[in-house]
Amino acid sequence: MKYFITGGAGFIGSNMADRLLSELENEVVVYDNFSTGRREFLEDALKNERFTLIEGDNLDEEKLKESMKGCDFVFHFAANADVRMGTEHPEKDLKQNTIATFNVLEAMRANNIKRIGFSSTGSVYGEATVIPTPEDAPFPIQTSLYGASKLACEGLLAAYAEGFDFQVYIFRFVSILGERYTHGHVFDFCKKLKDDPTQLYILGNGKQRKSYLYVKDCMEAILTVIRNADEKVNIYNLGTDEYCEVNDSVGWISKRLGVDPKLSYAGGERGWIGDNPFIYLDTKKVRSLGWKPKATIEEGVVKTVEYLMSNPWVFEARN
Amino acid sequence: MKYFITGGAGFIGSNMADRLLSELENEVVVYDNFSTGRREFLEDALKNERFTLIEGDNLDEEKLKESMKGCDFVFHFAANADVRMGTEHPEKDLKQNTIATFNVLEAMRANNIKRIGFSSTGSVYGEATVIPTPEDAPFPIQTSLYGASKLACEGLLAAYAEGFDFQVYIFRFVSILGERYTHGHVFDFCKKLKDDPTQLYILGNGKQRKSYLYVKDCMEAILTVIRNADEKVNIYNLGTDEYCEVNDSVGWISKRLGVDPKLSYAGGERGWIGDNPFIYLDTKKVRSLGWKPKATIEEGVVKTVEYLMSNPWVFEARN
Repeated sequence: MKYFITGGAGFIGSNMADRLLSELENEVVVYDNFSTGRREFLEDALKNERFTLIEGDNLDEEKLKESMKGCDFVFHFAANADVRMGTEHPEKDLKQNTIATFNVLEAMRANNIKRIGFSSTGSVYGEATVIPTPEDAPFPIQTSLYGASKLACEGLLAAYAEGFDFQVYIFRFVSILGERYTHGHVFDFCKKLKDDPTQLYILGNGKQRKSYLYVKDCMEAILTVIRNADEKVNIYNLGTDEYCEVNDSVGWISKRLGVDPKLSYAGGERGWIGDNPFIYLDTKKVRSLGWKPKATIEEGVVKTVEYLMSNPWVFEARN
Repeated sequence: MKYFITGGAGFIGSNMADRLLSELENEVVVYDNFSTGRREFLEDALKNERFTLIEGDNLDEEKLKESMKGCDFVFHFAANADVRMGTEHPEKDLKQNTIATFNVLEAMRANNIKRIGFSSTGSVYGEATVIPTPEDAPFPIQTSLYGASKLACEGLLAAYAEGFDFQVYIFRFVSILGERYTHGHVFDFCKKLKDDPTQLYILGNGKQRKSYLYVKDCMEAILTVIRNADEKVNIYNLGTDEYCEVNDSVGWISKRLGVDPKLSYAGGERGWIGDNPFIYLDTKKVRSLGWKPKATIEEGVVKTVEYLMSNPWVFEARN
């Protein structure tokens, strides 16, 4: 199988590239504009003759179409993943998520590629009324531009399944942690504590409850689903069967770093506008296919801290 | 109050313009690109000094911003409403629905206008598993590009409510009938029977069950909601408490026209890809505000046929 991965130089995408290349029958084409992706993440992949790297943007429709030629399956991971800053630049979610996804689908159609795996988010549930939240939870009300744009993408995928006979796999992720993680609160905390181990300022009240999944568990979950689920539209929550408070993760991070910072809080239930004080997904559906995560949330956080400590270059700001 | 109506020269928009102008305290600005709107629909409004017509497109961001100046409330009705042909030109729903709605919201933000009423659709429920379908039905799977684009718009509105302190009113319509109706199956049937009263070819098997709402009842429902519901995000199904089969409406139309056509069927449960064989919305929520429809579905169909017979000019194709 020849896989095409948008955002393949990013956290999720590069992990998927490596995972797919570990199977000798697979070829991988990574397409990335390197706005947040890192060439370093593809160090191993670039040594593999079954791997091709194309620098390109999903808003460049012609290049996207051209680059996808001959592929069998598309993983569409490229996205604006900056959940917090949606209100600073609302057009970013529209362009980089909704319109980019439309372009990916159109490029697939032009190349007669019919199968796609897509990274959606638990944020599409807004502030869920049912927790743990199953895939068929009550019709949600969006609370962030990010969630709204991902929901728009999900709708496009499903409509292409119906209208153009695509087979689509939609993964609603909790936050993902692990090797190459470079974005989100564990990253922010590690960076701040590296600069000043004596204190840590926390958005919200620290009691926001979050669920995390370790990236390698996430990769196995995705492959389990695309190899076993066979509906036209396949929607799966991906997460662990547990959650933690932001304060718990601060404890694990501090312990692993060997620091004891004085904590201070911005206060309030939410870390930012649209922050969800409790994301916890029901993962019965994916478990029913035989998958289960190997790492606990604590183990995922610790692996992430270890990765960040061994790779201090990821802290160098590039924007 | 000064109301801004996108798509104000269309079926729904022009009815709303007239309805609002019937109250002496209201001013109305209609913004329409006349791609499907009709100047004739604004004949009465144009005589009113409290009315302004601006010819403009929602993809023209600057003109949109400029035109909205000084308004208090926006009705966003402009849309590509061609549910059936989505797969012929998928970019149409993206541009004219999703991106246009984004532009409307941004223009509101630029003008510090915070309240919007939006025409969504029962199609966002896909093939609903709960019928009659309430607003908080299980998280639906989209089946049409049209429904997917309207869902994308709903998400944007809700995210603007959360992120920018908007107050949004989302109306999930069944099909609307009545004066100025120029689009959909009652229109198609009347047109065909006008050309040849001896036969009628019906898409699907004629057993598709549909619910319809008479346009003047629809206007009252919308005003009831925006004047009484006061959440940040207000989502209301609008429809009648009954449904009919396509075959029933064929009977009512034929009777009113005094014709007896030989019927033939394309067959199949669906009239077209993404057609929903049964749309029937639960309207308890809007009824709880004191609204109820005055016309039955049959009365709505008959009023529509009478309108079309008195206004044969609407059959002149313009595209």
